[in-house]
Amino acid sequence: MKHTIPIVENILSANDRLAAENHTRLDADGVFAINLMASPGAGSTSLILATLEALAGRLRLGVIEGDLAGSIDADKAAAAGIPAVQINTGGECHLDAVMVRGALDSLPLGRIDLLIIENVGNLVCPAAFQLGSHLNLLIASIPEGDDKPYKYPGMYRGVQALVINKTDLLPYVPFNMDYFRRGVEALNPGLATFPLSCRTGEGLPAFADWLVGQVQHGRKKNPR
Amino acid sequence: MKHTIPIVENILSANDRLAAENHTRLDADGVFAINLMASPGAGSTSLILATLEALAGRLRLGVIEGDLAGSIDADKAAAAGIPAVQINTGGECHLDAVMVRGALDSLPLGRIDLLIIENVGNLVCPAAFQLGSHLNLLIASIPEGDDKPYKYPGMYRGVQALVINKTDLLPYVPFNMDYFRRGVEALNPGLATFPLSCRTGEGLPAFADWLVGQVQHGRKKNPR
Repeated sequence: MKHTIPIVENILSANDRLAAENHTRLDADGVFAINLMASPGAGSTSLILATLEALAGRLRLGVIEGDLAGSIDADKAAAAGIPAVQINTGGECHLDAVMVRGALDSLPLGRIDLLIIENVGNLVCPAAFQLGSHLNLLIASIPEGDDKPYKYPGMYRGVQALVINKTDLLPYVPFNMDYFRRGVEALNPGLATFPLSCRTGEGLPAFADWLVGQVQHGRKKNPR
Repeated sequence: MKHTIPIVENILSANDRLAAENHTRLDADGVFAINLMASPGAGSTSLILATLEALAGRLRLGVIEGDLAGSIDADKAAAAGIPAVQINTGGECHLDAVMVRGALDSLPLGRIDLLIIENVGNLVCPAAFQLGSHLNLLIASIPEGDDKPYKYPGMYRGVQALVINKTDLLPYVPFNMDYFRRGVEALNPGLATFPLSCRTGEGLPAFADWLVGQVQHGRKKNPR
């Protein structure tokens, strides 16, 4: 067992160096990048498409889609007119900075304001790997249940914003919002949180306005 | 990169040996064990509790609950009168045969017919690690969406039965059952599939009857 620990540390530290390179490159091109994490089926791709509509042209989007297999999500984004690259990880349960570096080569970065990197659907592994993004965003969803912060604390601790999707299902499933929010607050006090429904559009304008603010704030810090 | 391949193979092969030992031990005690896998929030614990009710005493249950942190699920099972052990994996994204071996020591195996091992909520990592169970069972859930077989093929390929939970939400979310089933059939032809709702109880009796049959069949193969 002793041998495995330094190996993991070396991999993470190599990944962190590449993530820092990705970050510098994104800043140079004026791209604000979000690492979007969620359970399978929480609505990552739906959020991207709903956000595109809610932004109404205020930001130019690009996406990197991470999945074990297939190109369903990249196809959906491309159909909506968003420059999209699909990464297939094979068996890997998360994206890493090398995969993202390769995807950046295929995107027209000079024509993108906000790059959304949709990680593999997983509440564990993606939390451990930096990609070079400016912000980690987690999507929870109402039908997943209210106990997820208590069960996946590492993920909830490591993000700078939280979307609570599928609020339209609140009448049909048991979900104690107070219990959920207490769990989040204990792990990540004051976390920016956006309850919304990609299906009905409820809550999307506030989220889109916040995104615009984040990108503008990022530009002030790193003017081209 | 060359160095990482044999290390992974060694870990997996050590795990497989321990899994075989767990299997032999379970058979000796007349315990039929299920490795229960699902996304976070698909309803694993709800399925265990609903199954207990639907079995109406026909099988004596035991559970091993795998989570990164906390004991919410084991507490729920224990409150329902099921012998329960909680495994906290820390950062690990799946259970392995060593963890299960430790948990078996804490269970009254002689008084258990059906042991349900609830893996960490994750559609990627648990698929790669045998635990010593007799059957791999996957829970999909309606609000996760109909594209999961296409995105997580390894998981759908490696199971011997599939529960489709939360059928009560079908009227409220977009879910094309034909598209979903085509994806499953392509990966795992003829897979035993049980649409049900833990919330309303619809479909539970058929699932419970099938479980009883599986346990009886397992006993015929391995008479004590």
